Amino acid sequence: MIKTDTISAQNAKYEANLRADYAALGDKLARAGIDIDAVKERAKSFGVAVPSWGTGTGGTRFARFPGEGEPRHIFDKLDDCGVIHSLTQATPSVSLHIPWDKADLGDMLAKAEEHGLKFDAMNSNTFQDQPDQAQSYKFGSLSHNEAATRQQAIEHNLECIEIGDKLGSKALTVWIGDGSNFPGQTHMGRQFERYMGSMKEIYKGLPDDWRIFSEHKIYEPAFYSTVVQDWGTSYLIASELGDKAQCLVDLGHHAPNVNIEMIVSRLIRQGKLGGFHFNDSKYGDDDLDSGTIDPYRLFLVWNELVDAEGTEGLNLSHMIDQSHNVTDPIESLMISAMEIQRAFVQASLVDRKALAGYQDANDALMASATLRAGFRTDVEAIVAMARLETGGAIDPIMTYRASGYRAQVSAVRPKVSGAGGGIV
Amino acid sequence: MIKTDTISAQNAKYEANLRADYAALGDKLARAGIDIDAVKERAKSFGVAVPSWGTGTGGTRFARFPGEGEPRHIFDKLDDCGVIHSLTQATPSVSLHIPWDKADLGDMLAKAEEHGLKFDAMNSNTFQDQPDQAQSYKFGSLSHNEAATRQQAIEHNLECIEIGDKLGSKALTVWIGDGSNFPGQTHMGRQFERYMGSMKEIYKGLPDDWRIFSEHKIYEPAFYSTVVQDWGTSYLIASELGDKAQCLVDLGHHAPNVNIEMIVSRLIRQGKLGGFHFNDSKYGDDDLDSGTIDPYRLFLVWNELVDAEGTEGLNLSHMIDQSHNVTDPIESLMISAMEIQRAFVQASLVDRKALAGYQDANDALMASATLRAGFRTDVEAIVAMARLETGGAIDPIMTYRASGYRAQVSAVRPKVSGAGGGIV
Amino acid sequence: MIKTDTISAQNAKYEANLRADYAALGDKLARAGIDIDAVKERAKSFGVAVPSWGTGTGGTRFARFPGEGEPRHIFDKLDDCGVIHSLTQATPSVSLHIPWDKADLGDMLAKAEEHGLKFDAMNSNTFQDQPDQAQSYKFGSLSHNEAATRQQAIEHNLECIEIGDKLGSKALTVWIGDGSNFPGQTHMGRQFERYMGSMKEIYKGLPDDWRIFSEHKIYEPAFYSTVVQDWGTSYLIASELGDKAQCLVDLGHHAPNVNIEMIVSRLIRQGKLGGFHFNDSKYGDDDLDSGTIDPYRLFLVWNELVDAEGTEGLNLSHMIDQSHNVTDPIESLMISAMEIQRAFVQASLVDRKALAGYQDANDALMASATLRAGFRTDVEAIVAMARLETGGAIDPIMTYRASGYRAQVSAVRPKVSGAGGGIV
Amino acid sequence: MIKTDTISAQNAKYEANLRADYAALGDKLARAGIDIDAVKERAKSFGVAVPSWGTGTGGTRFARFPGEGEPRHIFDKLDDCGVIHSLTQATPSVSLHIPWDKADLGDMLAKAEEHGLKFDAMNSNTFQDQPDQAQSYKFGSLSHNEAATRQQAIEHNLECIEIGDKLGSKALTVWIGDGSNFPGQTHMGRQFERYMGSMKEIYKGLPDDWRIFSEHKIYEPAFYSTVVQDWGTSYLIASELGDKAQCLVDLGHHAPNVNIEMIVSRLIRQGKLGGFHFNDSKYGDDDLDSGTIDPYRLFLVWNELVDAEGTEGLNLSHMIDQSHNVTDPIESLMISAMEIQRAFVQASLVDRKALAGYQDANDALMASATLRAGFRTDVEAIVAMARLETGGAIDPIMTYRASGYRAQVSAVRPKVSGAGGGIV
Repeated sequence: MIKTDTISAQNAKYEANLRADYAALGDKLARAGIDIDAVKERAKSFGVAVPSWGTGTGGTRFARFPGEGEPRHIFDKLDDCGVIHSLTQATPSVSLHIPWDKADLGDMLAKAEEHGLKFDAMNSNTFQDQPDQAQSYKFGSLSHNEAATRQQAIEHNLECIEIGDKLGSKALTVWIGDGSNFPGQTHMGRQFERYMGSMKEIYKGLPDDWRIFSEHKIYEPAFYSTVVQDWGTSYLIASELGDKAQCLVDLGHHAPNVNIEMIVSRLIRQGKLGGFHFNDSKYGDDDLDSGTIDPYRLFLVWNELVDAEGTEGLNLSHMIDQSHNVTDPIESLMISAMEIQRAFVQASLVDRKALAGYQDANDALMASATLRAGFRTDVEAIVAMARLETGGAIDPIMTYRASGYRAQVSAVRPKVSGAGGGIV
Repeated sequence: MIKTDTISAQNAKYEANLRADYAALGDKLARAGIDIDAVKERAKSFGVAVPSWGTGTGGTRFARFPGEGEPRHIFDKLDDCGVIHSLTQATPSVSLHIPWDKADLGDMLAKAEEHGLKFDAMNSNTFQDQPDQAQSYKFGSLSHNEAATRQQAIEHNLECIEIGDKLGSKALTVWIGDGSNFPGQTHMGRQFERYMGSMKEIYKGLPDDWRIFSEHKIYEPAFYSTVVQDWGTSYLIASELGDKAQCLVDLGHHAPNVNIEMIVSRLIRQGKLGGFHFNDSKYGDDDLDSGTIDPYRLFLVWNELVDAEGTEGLNLSHMIDQSHNVTDPIESLMISAMEIQRAFVQASLVDRKALAGYQDANDALMASATLRAGFRTDVEAIVAMARLETGGAIDPIMTYRASGYRAQVSAVRPKVSGAGGGIV
Repeated sequence: MIKTDTISAQNAKYEANLRADYAALGDKLARAGIDIDAVKERAKSFGVAVPSWGTGTGGTRFARFPGEGEPRHIFDKLDDCGVIHSLTQATPSVSLHIPWDKADLGDMLAKAEEHGLKFDAMNSNTFQDQPDQAQSYKFGSLSHNEAATRQQAIEHNLECIEIGDKLGSKALTVWIGDGSNFPGQTHMGRQFERYMGSMKEIYKGLPDDWRIFSEHKIYEPAFYSTVVQDWGTSYLIASELGDKAQCLVDLGHHAPNVNIEMIVSRLIRQGKLGGFHFNDSKYGDDDLDSGTIDPYRLFLVWNELVDAEGTEGLNLSHMIDQSHNVTDPIESLMISAMEIQRAFVQASLVDRKALAGYQDANDALMASATLRAGFRTDVEAIVAMARLETGGAIDPIMTYRASGYRAQVSAVRPKVSGAGGGIV
Repeated sequence: MIKTDTISAQNAKYEANLRADYAALGDKLARAGIDIDAVKERAKSFGVAVPSWGTGTGGTRFARFPGEGEPRHIFDKLDDCGVIHSLTQATPSVSLHIPWDKADLGDMLAKAEEHGLKFDAMNSNTFQDQPDQAQSYKFGSLSHNEAATRQQAIEHNLECIEIGDKLGSKALTVWIGDGSNFPGQTHMGRQFERYMGSMKEIYKGLPDDWRIFSEHKIYEPAFYSTVVQDWGTSYLIASELGDKAQCLVDLGHHAPNVNIEMIVSRLIRQGKLGGFHFNDSKYGDDDLDSGTIDPYRLFLVWNELVDAEGTEGLNLSHMIDQSHNVTDPIESLMISAMEIQRAFVQASLVDRKALAGYQDANDALMASATLRAGFRTDVEAIVAMARLETGGAIDPIMTYRASGYRAQVSAVRPKVSGAGGGIV
């Protein structure tokens, strides 16, 4: 936990400059008819869930290089999540992964409360074999050709719901690695039917006030075909399951060049957009920090979301899903939460009336420029002021480093040695 | 038209070898429990429509380099299509493009009958402006933000139906270039609603025994967003329109790396696969001759189709859609029709019972090998024998060249000079 | 031409706000130790060449939709270029395309001088057939398998040098469409040898103070193989030709996902980076306005260039190369020039000493954040002030629209009717 | 080891059919002027190295699902390699990976001799941290910004050479994961200089009769930039190092859509093609069995190699590099070796004189068809007969399964439990 004193001491260094920047930006926005304080209040309303697993160092199939003070269990992870939220004031909830995060539920609730955290969507895991697991997921889980394996996977998902229900979560995200590595390995039609059958069983176990999110991914770990390969299939699933089923969009799970914001627009129209897994990527599902590779793409996604505000029934669950291989995971999660928040605030600045006018006039150039004007605005003063006013840090990274948190936890959490990835 | 004598004379050269190859392959297949004659009958049953526009030399935005004897109008095009069918016996129908192919309908029917050709799906054109057209499609057609433009595009599609109905066609393919070149240029949600509204008007005008095909494409000519960008959106359209609406899959209209055969599988399940535009590509929508770049991909698509034979309501419309920039279009269309037929025949050889057994046993290696065994089989003797027995040419390319057809038409069809593409 | 009065009248509307923004940004930068006036002087030093052909509306193989007042010839084009430069003060030169821009050289020099313009790199055209051309480029030009065709293409390039030399140009850009559409169509090795042979002939004709730029492109118009397909081949060419040969990087000519800034880094190391064709793209060689799709990518390219300032022998030729299909080309070129300039200025703000420190400390997070800090800065006030102080417009687009230039030229330049692209 | 009796017993089942197929194909080829026995002799001359690590089950960052009888050490791996070679007669050598395969060299040589195996190129590993390693490779190895880390990586490579030299290897393959995950994380220019410096040190330690192979990869494990990202950079490295340095092409290490056979052609021209890592892929570096996804692409690579036979100095080192996640690795390696051999034999059937004639005549259609004719030929009888005549199995997979080898080794090699990949 970061002491309030530490935050205050750091903020004191930056506050004068922040106030100057905020005033200057306020003047500039006022000339455009925008009330900076109203935008700041929007910034304060922003929240994105941190993935519990994201607090540990990630890796690739080639290797994993752990850092200092790797969290040992969900309680360490919740401590780290508490740090992230206390500094950014933008991550009020945590998304859990079962079985990785299994522990005493009362203790988990207490720890979360200690940090002012809630639990967002639960994540099931049927892409790995756990010790003493009866059936292997080597050849699939919810779509496996053997009923016993499907049943085991169904029950695991039902258990995730049960755990989540006790923790106050209201959603289950289902992502599976099922598919095939070679043409012919599976019958793609029959495999999909088996998957639908399993999902219907899970859906039956969903409490009335819960939602189930279908998450698609073009490839990896399956390398020829994936059962839920794109938003089209994800939409079929959510449609067939029922009203409580929606689609979850992970920014890194698409074919090259795909226009993701268009998928967002389509799913909103169909009432089937449930939420996001935020991250950034250049090549495949790189799971890099949000906004670090193509920040304009992140903005364009938020442009659709801000545009759709007020759509009946729209209820989005925002989560980060990243792999932090070369950075301190706490820092990457803070940076990511702030970059996502930045895109949200920038999208909030778009002059939508002017934009619609240019669109109606087929003035492609000015329509495009109107969107860019929002993106171009440096809103750092707004988000920093939102943090300051809610007890967070003006500069979360520098404050975190000044706090010595990593060194403190490294003293009690044992060193983890480097380990190979999946290839050996 | 190719004289029967010419065909016979050429066939005489190849027949002995063909019969030897056919006998040898028959022995080999018999050992695997396959009756070659039954496969040959399947080959004879195969047909794919030739696109009327494909008989002319195509080009790129940079340039078009016409060949000798370019067809001047639909009658020349039908003559060329007649040549293709007479030699390959695999292209019994022609897919028309309006307004390019507008002419006296009685004359068209007579010309088609002369060549033993029928008319397959009609294609509308709202991606170009025609002389004296009231509204421009520069900023869209069926999704344009002005009602008058949408109306003009709707009426054009209704006219296509009207023409097609008189010609015996039973389907309309709708492909539009609508979209945008810049983020913000259009409101993607409202644009899609306008598109749906227009399509519903066209659908109302569809005769009871007709179908309407929605064709998606990831990009080009729109370079940032395309209204019908992928099969997911195409599926939404077909679902919302009604039972007579289905999706058409063009093999070149997908994002890089996308698994097309999986899309085929999904659409079959949903009862929404209407047909194909066949071609091949390495980079974008290259519109190259079918089977020339990735023949195994073509086979895998056919593997899904053969597997789905007998599915209730499955009624596929197969068309070629290519741009022939460096070859004699007649030759490219013949080669393409034969490559598509080859993939169909190879897929027919797959031992589906064994395949299912390997799939059920999670024997990925043998399942994959079983599929490849079909592909690996050289079925040239089967398709050539099917041609021979139906009056076609054993070697359509050599027979065509021997016929002197291109020189004959070049004598009467005026030379076309090279022209720039869209860039100048 | 835009009258000085018009510019002044428009600037008067924006000047007060600009001065306020400039002062506020100046304060902010001063706190970071940056002198805003020095940055502004850098902005003034920036220049990028406008492509003469870019002043006309472009198109795709499907269609071209001309706008009002399309330029008829190089003199109209130079007038349009004059407008662009007078308003942006960022485009002091024009890149010509032969034979499209062939005209009386004295008249061209006079017209250019009238607008204060110089001539940047010359562009040859051997990807189209011109009327009365002896040999066709259908199957290649500099790499054609017939010596006569190669010779014709060589002579055309030599003529481009000759023309350029009289106009004050100092470089020739060679981009060809040569390649193949099908595996086997050409022998890739022999084709490359023929290309090298032709380039050596052209190189011999290069004046001592000229450079020749080799421009690569992964595909289009050739759809299976392209002779100069990537920077690797382009580098081989430039190396083998000699010191006056360098590589030109077009931002849209790469395979999906390729890291372009890394190519820039490699070519700088080898002393073989000659310049750029700027544009933006989402899918293929979309030729969209610079900075409209992925502005951070543009910034990262400029980050390499600013970092490399002072490298011995580095002499870059910056040109725009875009196709303006749905906008007024003059507006798109102004926007593009300003976005490229913006990226240059933002890259100039990067704290390179801090960056190097983070890099040396393997502090990936802060290194990345340091780069983003430059990009995040809204430098509009700097580039607008640079324009104001050099006689340009604070808001070039609004000033251009207020000037009525497009209406004026439309009155004298005849209307061009819509035309099909290469497909018909 | 597979007993000769087992092989003979299995072959007896298939021999009659094989002889019939061989005779029929012989007749067919004879009509085309091809002597099937000569082709068979070429098939016998074929060899590709098996990667020692490929004998174990691979995985992804998500999970690894081991199979039965996983090899425990290099001796088990060599036993498995012996099985592969005895059945396919196509894998006479093994490529080692250090430190994974470190053991007593005398014992290794004895074991290899027992199976009639040689050692092909050595592979170093600086992409993982080994226990008790002084410096971590988390932030790079040969290009690390600290000299001590680079030195450690250099020494490891020199040790690989030393080991290999004693084992009879004649080449070192250097593949590193060095790069960065975020823009700015590294200075791409300085990082490359450090890499070159390290490589020069390794090159100094290379025996006169050795070669060093530079292997490029576009991404993974680095997700923003990779030091040796493409063939262009790999070529720079090999050129700068000297004559003993060449480039190694891994089929899965390219950007989407890249024409790999063209890279092969370019490297052959420059005298810098050293060899291959064979595998197949649909999305990223999927490391799937060779020839299972796009067999025509594999053929087109071999078409270049067969075409280049006789080129002075051409000396290629062929290796498989795959990850077998869902199959028995021994079976996948046998299938892969046979598919690579198949492509080689098919490419050997291409009528190169006819092909050159069509190329010279710009007859794109017939040139392309001529190439496909080689690919279309079912050469199974040729490669099977080559196996039969050299003591291998007509059907290696069925013979292997009949042998009970996997069950035998499972009895002595302990069961390995499932393990997570790099993400946890």
